[in-house]
Amino acid sequence: MTTVTTVVPQSAPQEILERYNRVRRRTLALCDPLSAEDMMVQSCPEASPVKWHLAHTSWFFESFVLRPFLPEYRAFNAEFSWLFNSYYQSYSAFPAKRLRSSFSRPGLDEVLHYRGWVDAGMERLIAADPRPEALRLIELGANHEEQHQELLLTDILHAFFTNPLRPDYRAWSESDDLAGMKSGESDQAATRGAEAGRLEFDRYEGGLREVGRQADGFCFDNELPRHRAWIEHFFLGRRLVTCGEFADFIADGGYRRPELWLSAGWDAVNANAWVAPLYWTRQEGDDRDWRIFTLRGEFPLQALAAVPVSHVSFYEADAFARWASKRLPTEFEWESVAEGRQISGNMLSSGRLLPAPPPAGSPSLYSGDGPAQLFGDCWEWTASAYLPYPGFQPLPGSLGEYNGKFMSGQMVLRGGSCVTPDGHIRATYRNFFSPETRWQFSGIRLAR
Amino acid sequence: MTTVTTVVPQSAPQEILERYNRVRRRTLALCDPLSAEDMMVQSCPEASPVKWHLAHTSWFFESFVLRPFLPEYRAFNAEFSWLFNSYYQSYSAFPAKRLRSSFSRPGLDEVLHYRGWVDAGMERLIAADPRPEALRLIELGANHEEQHQELLLTDILHAFFTNPLRPDYRAWSESDDLAGMKSGESDQAATRGAEAGRLEFDRYEGGLREVGRQADGFCFDNELPRHRAWIEHFFLGRRLVTCGEFADFIADGGYRRPELWLSAGWDAVNANAWVAPLYWTRQEGDDRDWRIFTLRGEFPLQALAAVPVSHVSFYEADAFARWASKRLPTEFEWESVAEGRQISGNMLSSGRLLPAPPPAGSPSLYSGDGPAQLFGDCWEWTASAYLPYPGFQPLPGSLGEYNGKFMSGQMVLRGGSCVTPDGHIRATYRNFFSPETRWQFSGIRLAR
Amino acid sequence: MTTVTTVVPQSAPQEILERYNRVRRRTLALCDPLSAEDMMVQSCPEASPVKWHLAHTSWFFESFVLRPFLPEYRAFNAEFSWLFNSYYQSYSAFPAKRLRSSFSRPGLDEVLHYRGWVDAGMERLIAADPRPEALRLIELGANHEEQHQELLLTDILHAFFTNPLRPDYRAWSESDDLAGMKSGESDQAATRGAEAGRLEFDRYEGGLREVGRQADGFCFDNELPRHRAWIEHFFLGRRLVTCGEFADFIADGGYRRPELWLSAGWDAVNANAWVAPLYWTRQEGDDRDWRIFTLRGEFPLQALAAVPVSHVSFYEADAFARWASKRLPTEFEWESVAEGRQISGNMLSSGRLLPAPPPAGSPSLYSGDGPAQLFGDCWEWTASAYLPYPGFQPLPGSLGEYNGKFMSGQMVLRGGSCVTPDGHIRATYRNFFSPETRWQFSGIRLAR
Amino acid sequence: MTTVTTVVPQSAPQEILERYNRVRRRTLALCDPLSAEDMMVQSCPEASPVKWHLAHTSWFFESFVLRPFLPEYRAFNAEFSWLFNSYYQSYSAFPAKRLRSSFSRPGLDEVLHYRGWVDAGMERLIAADPRPEALRLIELGANHEEQHQELLLTDILHAFFTNPLRPDYRAWSESDDLAGMKSGESDQAATRGAEAGRLEFDRYEGGLREVGRQADGFCFDNELPRHRAWIEHFFLGRRLVTCGEFADFIADGGYRRPELWLSAGWDAVNANAWVAPLYWTRQEGDDRDWRIFTLRGEFPLQALAAVPVSHVSFYEADAFARWASKRLPTEFEWESVAEGRQISGNMLSSGRLLPAPPPAGSPSLYSGDGPAQLFGDCWEWTASAYLPYPGFQPLPGSLGEYNGKFMSGQMVLRGGSCVTPDGHIRATYRNFFSPETRWQFSGIRLAR
Repeated sequence: MTTVTTVVPQSAPQEILERYNRVRRRTLALCDPLSAEDMMVQSCPEASPVKWHLAHTSWFFESFVLRPFLPEYRAFNAEFSWLFNSYYQSYSAFPAKRLRSSFSRPGLDEVLHYRGWVDAGMERLIAADPRPEALRLIELGANHEEQHQELLLTDILHAFFTNPLRPDYRAWSESDDLAGMKSGESDQAATRGAEAGRLEFDRYEGGLREVGRQADGFCFDNELPRHRAWIEHFFLGRRLVTCGEFADFIADGGYRRPELWLSAGWDAVNANAWVAPLYWTRQEGDDRDWRIFTLRGEFPLQALAAVPVSHVSFYEADAFARWASKRLPTEFEWESVAEGRQISGNMLSSGRLLPAPPPAGSPSLYSGDGPAQLFGDCWEWTASAYLPYPGFQPLPGSLGEYNGKFMSGQMVLRGGSCVTPDGHIRATYRNFFSPETRWQFSGIRLAR
Repeated sequence: MTTVTTVVPQSAPQEILERYNRVRRRTLALCDPLSAEDMMVQSCPEASPVKWHLAHTSWFFESFVLRPFLPEYRAFNAEFSWLFNSYYQSYSAFPAKRLRSSFSRPGLDEVLHYRGWVDAGMERLIAADPRPEALRLIELGANHEEQHQELLLTDILHAFFTNPLRPDYRAWSESDDLAGMKSGESDQAATRGAEAGRLEFDRYEGGLREVGRQADGFCFDNELPRHRAWIEHFFLGRRLVTCGEFADFIADGGYRRPELWLSAGWDAVNANAWVAPLYWTRQEGDDRDWRIFTLRGEFPLQALAAVPVSHVSFYEADAFARWASKRLPTEFEWESVAEGRQISGNMLSSGRLLPAPPPAGSPSLYSGDGPAQLFGDCWEWTASAYLPYPGFQPLPGSLGEYNGKFMSGQMVLRGGSCVTPDGHIRATYRNFFSPETRWQFSGIRLAR
Repeated sequence: MTTVTTVVPQSAPQEILERYNRVRRRTLALCDPLSAEDMMVQSCPEASPVKWHLAHTSWFFESFVLRPFLPEYRAFNAEFSWLFNSYYQSYSAFPAKRLRSSFSRPGLDEVLHYRGWVDAGMERLIAADPRPEALRLIELGANHEEQHQELLLTDILHAFFTNPLRPDYRAWSESDDLAGMKSGESDQAATRGAEAGRLEFDRYEGGLREVGRQADGFCFDNELPRHRAWIEHFFLGRRLVTCGEFADFIADGGYRRPELWLSAGWDAVNANAWVAPLYWTRQEGDDRDWRIFTLRGEFPLQALAAVPVSHVSFYEADAFARWASKRLPTEFEWESVAEGRQISGNMLSSGRLLPAPPPAGSPSLYSGDGPAQLFGDCWEWTASAYLPYPGFQPLPGSLGEYNGKFMSGQMVLRGGSCVTPDGHIRATYRNFFSPETRWQFSGIRLAR
Repeated sequence: MTTVTTVVPQSAPQEILERYNRVRRRTLALCDPLSAEDMMVQSCPEASPVKWHLAHTSWFFESFVLRPFLPEYRAFNAEFSWLFNSYYQSYSAFPAKRLRSSFSRPGLDEVLHYRGWVDAGMERLIAADPRPEALRLIELGANHEEQHQELLLTDILHAFFTNPLRPDYRAWSESDDLAGMKSGESDQAATRGAEAGRLEFDRYEGGLREVGRQADGFCFDNELPRHRAWIEHFFLGRRLVTCGEFADFIADGGYRRPELWLSAGWDAVNANAWVAPLYWTRQEGDDRDWRIFTLRGEFPLQALAAVPVSHVSFYEADAFARWASKRLPTEFEWESVAEGRQISGNMLSSGRLLPAPPPAGSPSLYSGDGPAQLFGDCWEWTASAYLPYPGFQPLPGSLGEYNGKFMSGQMVLRGGSCVTPDGHIRATYRNFFSPETRWQFSGIRLAR
């Protein structure tokens, strides 16, 4: 069993600074299509305004790196130390989350100055041969900012869906490799809809396995300690469930049959009047003609039929699995399959910003070589509750609140999504949301 | 009894255009201190973002004047015809009010273009010798926009109070005539606190009176028809209740004594944990050191002791009156006193943006010449429920929804406030809000 | 203007005792069809368990008559002095209303003993030549208990409707004069449905009227002082609106057309998913086959077609009136018609327990002799908000909370209902409920 | 791995009937102290009226045993087949849970007749040599009724606490072995408070264990299949946490320190204004003088200082553990300690009806012989989410809804309580409640 710490390999200051700057620049690049007004919108309790993400990620470096490790550091604005605290009770008081939509001041310009001020401080710190503890926290801050990059995109997707005009974040264009997708009428698209093919399962052996992160490279505290777990043999689906398959579930009365649902899920269906995944809409009374809103605009279902279904809650994932006479995998089944495999897939750098169909004709879809879409595309709901690993120790100090206090009432998701920054995800990575959550890129992989 | 219509005197096109342009320019001028981001904030269900006010007031002219009366008019954007509809069910579908905070698109630039487009149309229409019906609707639209000017300021006050940084809308400066007010320490301010003096009452005779608007000049449909009402003799306070007097009520346990409150008021006190008017805050545990947030920044209670208390609900006004062994006046008592008097006072053009103490040494405060602060300063809660006048007829068409459908569950307020545009108010003007409303400049005049 | 008090004419002790005993016995008689378990049910926030009514009415005499006026009186149970207080803040603390459903102890037996104990005390007090003030309060207590007799029946109607088995309070029998009503199939019933005939209106002159109670006989404080009010001429419907007419409103899309509703009413329709009056049900999908649940069991709409519609909110009454191009009368219009007329109608003593069709062939329906169904059948929603009369003074002491503190947010109803005790109602009587209330026997009379 | 079924050993009909009758009689005996009115109370959403428990347990036998297996069985009342269905969606429609408080009809007498009718049917069925499947379902029904016996008591405890008079279910008497407990003043009681002694922990070895029920005797489907799980070595507390220890947590600011709580727990503390376990009350402002309400009346904290704390939520258990620098055990840690031990303790047959102090001077408290209070006293919150075991199969048919559909959002509790029927509990038994639940006898055992 490894020690409970976040271990960072030795790097030269220049490499660290480059890593830092790369992450920080990417955050700004994601804001390119957005106006200062777009960055004010907070359209649901789970989301935050984009401007808040810009400020909070800077606050994180200021609070946990610059203040403790750069003696001469002077705060950009003393008020920001509590204004942009998200939830660290032991660090300072902080505003209620819903108030973030009132932060018209500081304006975007001032927040960008704040980012620059923090960046300048970080540059000085990194140049000054920082202590290993500071380096670890810089890496943590970079990972933290990568998480907010994903949140920034999921939050703006919700914001633009809430806006009655439904603007695009980035329009789909002719030059995109899936040209024709938008109309849903081309033969190409229709064909693509069928390309996903029949869903096959591979058998994996059980046994006593080690799970959790080993001591090489960064990880979050919730991935530790590495420990043993017993797994029975199981079967795992070779690809994610598609929009087309999910439309079959809907057409088969999936949202009207209580026997398919967990009791709490059935309550959620009725309380929220769910009839389809989030972002699916249709004309009143037309049961088939779904349209799906994405960061790239709205598409007819037909155009996305082979694309993994996304923005479903755990309850919907679980009900779909029951309908299909399957189940969801546990997080350790998933991890045991993923461990050791190459981490590649449809992630943020692809620029696609929505899930992609499985690679046509790829051997991985038809052989025992391993499942497709393990990393990227959609976070995969597991059957595992988000609980501490045996011997779990939260990070010391305020950062102990980063993950540990949320280990209740949530389910684990694995594998990253189409808006997860490349390099951020790994086999041991544990994401977690409450089971009714739908605003994330959350999808379904079946097991049995 | 007059006919039930909104009558506008004949005016030359040039005068009408000047009137129109004056109103429209004033709306923009009120936005001078605001950023595009400020104009996105919607901090409570009653309020709207400022940008929405800019768009909706243009929509009003477009929908009810340009479309019906300017044949060649082409809409700026077809979507806007429903996007910026507020609540006219018979005109078009419209977005839920809470969604207005998601309208980052159209951006402020586009909304300003929309205003310009509508202004150009209006100029063409007015130059083209419009029909009398169109003129009446232009006047209605100008009055509608004046109402939104007041709302714009009350909404931004709430927005800035909600922002944890509590920015000023317009800072108080040395050159303001109440210099020293901010500190609350000068002798001047202390004296001013005392200047309000003892509250005197004048006796007014009862009898059969006519109330409601006579047929000269614009009025809203809810001021009609002019009709007879019987009033008993009564006494009316010569000035509004001050912050200092209200602080006495608080210090005497006013918010903790159920016998002072209407039953629904007591429920509101407990449900909302009210302990003072909206925008009054204090240090935890300090029962005396109130600070009052305004559009001009925050002031100590001492500095505003002689200023009319504002931002109280009907329930608080009623409880204060009971505590003082008085009552609130009815709307017809108020109107019978106001009718025929000159309409002047501390209104929007004063630039003060908060209520003012009664004029020191003014004869009106000490004689039967009439009460001070009748117009401007604060809307005055009356004891009258907002109900239709006998024979009330809503305006024809969609504009019938302007006032009539709200005649339930609300109380009448009279007299205008410090943010009411000069010229907008009159003796017969009926404002109305639900009794728990506090975000308006609503204050207290006593009767007995 | 009369003095503001509740004046009771001199009566002999024996008469007073008989009056007292008559009221008390009637309360118990109303419980005959009920079990101790029935008397535990509290099926909505407005209602109370029947057992609580039995105890609270005794508490009223104990608290406001026996304790102050019978020196040797010893409380039956010291805890009851606060346990059965309803809402008199200045008298004692009291349990939250929703807790009344937990009062399995004291049991019904003990509550009946409590009633006997109080009755014995009252007998001693009345025999002992009580002070006029005590006599006034006895009369008030008797009227108070009569109000709770009506509430007891409306509450048990709601309780039995909530019970999925929908038991009868008292079954309809062959010997009832409207035999055949239950089936709705007889020719008799069909004819009766038509008997209500076309709704006619009578014209009444306006002028300066006196309204409010004159100083002869008991009244509540809210009927005082008698004062002058100006009324314009008006027309009033000769009978109440029937279930058949209301079904036409429903069939014409009444509940789906926002233009017919006050804004708050439309919100209520949508929030509560109203599609018909309370107690109307139908088979899923069948838009015509309404069944109406009553204290006498369930009837098909057809059988009640000529019966006044009941259990509608003010909003529904107002929307129906707008649909019919009419309006609701004001409380003073109603009172000016009712004053001086004989107080008779379908009230509690008829034993019918539901509204009755207007008397067939009665001249009153076809002449200017006055409207039918003025008293009894249904409380009639008026267009008047429940506000204090000019010069209103609440009763002294805790009893000042009886009526006064509810003068906010409610509408006035006039005329009593089929479950109002005979002798309880009068032309000046003001009942009041919030506008969304439906569990009372509240119906519609039109004016224009 | 065993097969996924509920296996019942062969028994003679006479034994089965005796088992059945014993369970049924015990349910009625628990009602001895209750009136028909007591049996109407439903004081919180989690609870049901006692009368409903009486009816529903009969419905269970009628629906799942008599209807399928006794051909000549005629239903007592056809309506009851849906009226007393709790939540089996696939069996029939059923009333919303909150409506159970309106079931004054059927009355208690009729429900008792229903029980007798079902008992007679069961006697005939058992005498007729029933099929093994029927025997299995009879045993399931008996276990089902035992669960409702516990619920009946926890529900009536809540009902009596809600009643402002706070009646006893069964008064504490001199003859009870803990005489003097009620006053809290005797030396005996004070001593007893200290007797719990310092909390010691025993070390248990880890390894690959089998968990879940083996195929001998009844169990619920959620205890199956038996399967392997890896456990690390751990320490487990020798007794439950006491009221005295929990009072120390409160006095140390436990409910005011967010760092001790899970995020959702801290939200629950604030939303519900928790300051102590359920049923603990104190005089306003007195931070030490707690009184604890039980089925045996109210006791001062001092008298129960050595008694296990009960009626705490998972969040409170977790926060207490964090405060004590410990944690809660997992369900498999607990099971691995409990397996093979004798099942004895303070359960329903003791008649105590509240938890008991650990046995004074017992070697089990001071040696490695095993922990005290493993069975009975309080259900012990574990750190394990309630999830299906690998290969879990719900029972076939409607009974598949018994447990499986609740496997979301709940935590596992182990060991039974002072109101669990003796013989009902076992080492593999999995109880489950949502983490904010407090109305059960739920307590705390620490691990580390």
